[in-house]
Amino acid sequence: MRGRFISVEGIEGVGKSSNIAALVGHIESAGFEVLQTREPGGTPLAEDIRDILKDRGDEPIPEVAELLLMFAARSLNVNNVIIPALENGKWVVSDRFTDSSRAYQGGGRGIPLATIDGLADLVHRDTWPDLTILLDAPVEIGLGRVSKRGARDRFEQEQHEFFERVRECYLQIAAMEPERFAIVDTTRPLADVRQDVIALADLLLTK
Amino acid sequence: MRGRFISVEGIEGVGKSSNIAALVGHIESAGFEVLQTREPGGTPLAEDIRDILKDRGDEPIPEVAELLLMFAARSLNVNNVIIPALENGKWVVSDRFTDSSRAYQGGGRGIPLATIDGLADLVHRDTWPDLTILLDAPVEIGLGRVSKRGARDRFEQEQHEFFERVRECYLQIAAMEPERFAIVDTTRPLADVRQDVIALADLLLTK
Repeated sequence: MRGRFISVEGIEGVGKSSNIAALVGHIESAGFEVLQTREPGGTPLAEDIRDILKDRGDEPIPEVAELLLMFAARSLNVNNVIIPALENGKWVVSDRFTDSSRAYQGGGRGIPLATIDGLADLVHRDTWPDLTILLDAPVEIGLGRVSKRGARDRFEQEQHEFFERVRECYLQIAAMEPERFAIVDTTRPLADVRQDVIALADLLLTK
Repeated sequence: MRGRFISVEGIEGVGKSSNIAALVGHIESAGFEVLQTREPGGTPLAEDIRDILKDRGDEPIPEVAELLLMFAARSLNVNNVIIPALENGKWVVSDRFTDSSRAYQGGGRGIPLATIDGLADLVHRDTWPDLTILLDAPVEIGLGRVSKRGARDRFEQEQHEFFERVRECYLQIAAMEPERFAIVDTTRPLADVRQDVIALADLLLTK
């Protein structure tokens, strides 16, 4: 039986890592093998692309180059990791997927969503998550948590308004695909957030 | 005054490097500054992308990922190197440009030309070469020269039929844009080939 594919989305600082760990642990405890991955990245060459994208050097990266690198890394991850895992019956939990390109390169940078969705068609056609968990919090809360982490990468250096546009776009695309998206308010206590995330996994486990 | 942009194209082993050196020397001797570049590559981050594309490791690169990496590198090269040089009045000579994507990823790999030209529009709109010199030779001659070079990269490892399709595609796109393309038969003595290449530069220098 083909596995299920879950992506976790959200701006910086909403708690993706800890909630993904809880999610993976819960699915494994239900008896399934889980492949955990992240974007950009997830394969050796895709991680090399990630290094280019996160680069804090002097060379500017045009918005279109950023978008194409994201989808090149995604093509490697989908073909070399995600699809083989799903076909082997494993569940896949990914820290970010195409909705990140829509929110960051679309909402954040202003590239038309039609361009981004055209690339999604080209790169992964019907391989969309069965469930996308959008961890949501106001930008000032997310950025407040990130600021405690030390050196910021090229994305974390963006300004407040950039992340406002990213968050707004996330909420819009979630509203357009309510059957795939679940929005989880992460301003609440961590235990409550985790309970919601696990309840979402249970819905999928019993479907 | 804006500089002129020349690309040099062709399959492996047709003599691009030595003819580019002659071309650059000739334009410089006519009193112009020349920026010499290559694709994929030409900027620090684009050269990092080149390393990924030429990688001879175990991880397969999906055809679409290859295409997107080529255009991501091109976006960096066009925005960070080629356009600034042209605007500063320099001439630009590039070892490969978008016609290589058409010939290799289109003709060679079978990706539709409409997809490739859509990416070209997205990445560099009207920045096309003023002149494209297609160095042409039968595949067995080109590959015969490459086989003497030692370790082959991911492209040079392709089979004979792949390069037949690449060459065929080059000749087709050259026929479709005769005002931009000049085809130079490189089966002739090196001095004759070089004379043709320099005559083409002279045409552009006196235009």
